[in-house]
Amino acid sequence: MTPILFYGVPEGCSFGSIVALEWTGAPYRLCRIDMPGTVSSNAYGPINPVHETPSLMLPNGHVLSESMAILNHIAARTVAKGWGFEPKSEKFDRLNQMLAFLNTSFFNAFSPLWHVVEHELEASAKEVIRAYGIAKVEKAHAQLETLLGGRDWLVGEEKSLADAYFAGIARWNDFHQAVDRRQFPAVSALYDRLQGDAAMRFAWAIEHEAEAKTTGQFLGHVTLQEALGEIRQAA
Amino acid sequence: MTPILFYGVPEGCSFGSIVALEWTGAPYRLCRIDMPGTVSSNAYGPINPVHETPSLMLPNGHVLSESMAILNHIAARTVAKGWGFEPKSEKFDRLNQMLAFLNTSFFNAFSPLWHVVEHELEASAKEVIRAYGIAKVEKAHAQLETLLGGRDWLVGEEKSLADAYFAGIARWNDFHQAVDRRQFPAVSALYDRLQGDAAMRFAWAIEHEAEAKTTGQFLGHVTLQEALGEIRQAA
Repeated sequence: MTPILFYGVPEGCSFGSIVALEWTGAPYRLCRIDMPGTVSSNAYGPINPVHETPSLMLPNGHVLSESMAILNHIAARTVAKGWGFEPKSEKFDRLNQMLAFLNTSFFNAFSPLWHVVEHELEASAKEVIRAYGIAKVEKAHAQLETLLGGRDWLVGEEKSLADAYFAGIARWNDFHQAVDRRQFPAVSALYDRLQGDAAMRFAWAIEHEAEAKTTGQFLGHVTLQEALGEIRQAA
Repeated sequence: MTPILFYGVPEGCSFGSIVALEWTGAPYRLCRIDMPGTVSSNAYGPINPVHETPSLMLPNGHVLSESMAILNHIAARTVAKGWGFEPKSEKFDRLNQMLAFLNTSFFNAFSPLWHVVEHELEASAKEVIRAYGIAKVEKAHAQLETLLGGRDWLVGEEKSLADAYFAGIARWNDFHQAVDRRQFPAVSALYDRLQGDAAMRFAWAIEHEAEAKTTGQFLGHVTLQEALGEIRQAA
């Protein structure tokens, strides 16, 4: 069977996995998961018992979760195309290092801001947690600016799967109006550069149910019910 | 040269990387980094520009950071011993999935609790952020209990590098007195099981400057000054 990516909307970090599938050119299908409704539902439990997106149903019907694992899975199958790297190479290490930084420091900087949006809180508690989140987002942007060191892309001289993952998270800054991204020129330039990418525009159109033109091998949507019919439990 | 692991004390998540080096049996040296003092200092900047531990200086003098990247680096070199897995295998995916979960949900659940300990805050703000952190720690434990599904180890039928990383983070719950771990029987049993491991006891002794008996190939400590003399910038 053709892999199925379960992507969360709105504003899911699954965005990076959609872009990665487009860039690498593997055939895939998509299953749209509303957050927090469907992702929290019992129906989604068999796909991901911790109720998060993205998840990727593999050709054998097993499901793989967590962006870092999905991106590494895609990378391992596209070494010949330059998206993945031999496990003992420096590039393998550098891609993992950047993905890990994005996965902890950058992704998680936004957690308090999402918490405030998604939960009923007293005004004073909301203010405290939002201020805590904004300070984290600012620090993570400053760290990323340092890591970029004036380069155009996050890893090496060309775009990589780390840039795809970055793009899906960086936009949260606009959603939450946290910091002025222009304070961080390299981060800001990277973000702007990615907006022109065809796969980024595709992923955005998919999320917004607009006309989406694949430059990869997107084979259409399936419903959660249809996807559940193809699942096989891993041993 | 022999690799140098820069580990943070007290209570660093570097603990998992020390255990991984012991388990896999590679020769290595250690460099002790006090937190937040030394890790934040300019002296540590050349080791890790985002001022975090662990970092691993490789035989070529380049430095690799982020637990997930270091563990994947170690794994890639110990496939023959069963610690790492072929990149297209299901085990490679499962190890990455579990490491990623630990790296985001579990590790980061404790961030608000560390923030409260490490920063001067008004009593009311402290209370709000601590409550936010405790709720996150509780949710992450519940998720991990689900992911364990009653199994003895985090990935497959034997201990893996994910268990090493888990152990270094799980103890933060005791430090912060966040939740009663016994509410989560599988997580609690895993934690207790790991306490008896020789490499865990070694890592604990290293952190506490107690007598530490290597069961791997630990070749001694170096100072940060000495380590800086061996660094080579990556291209």
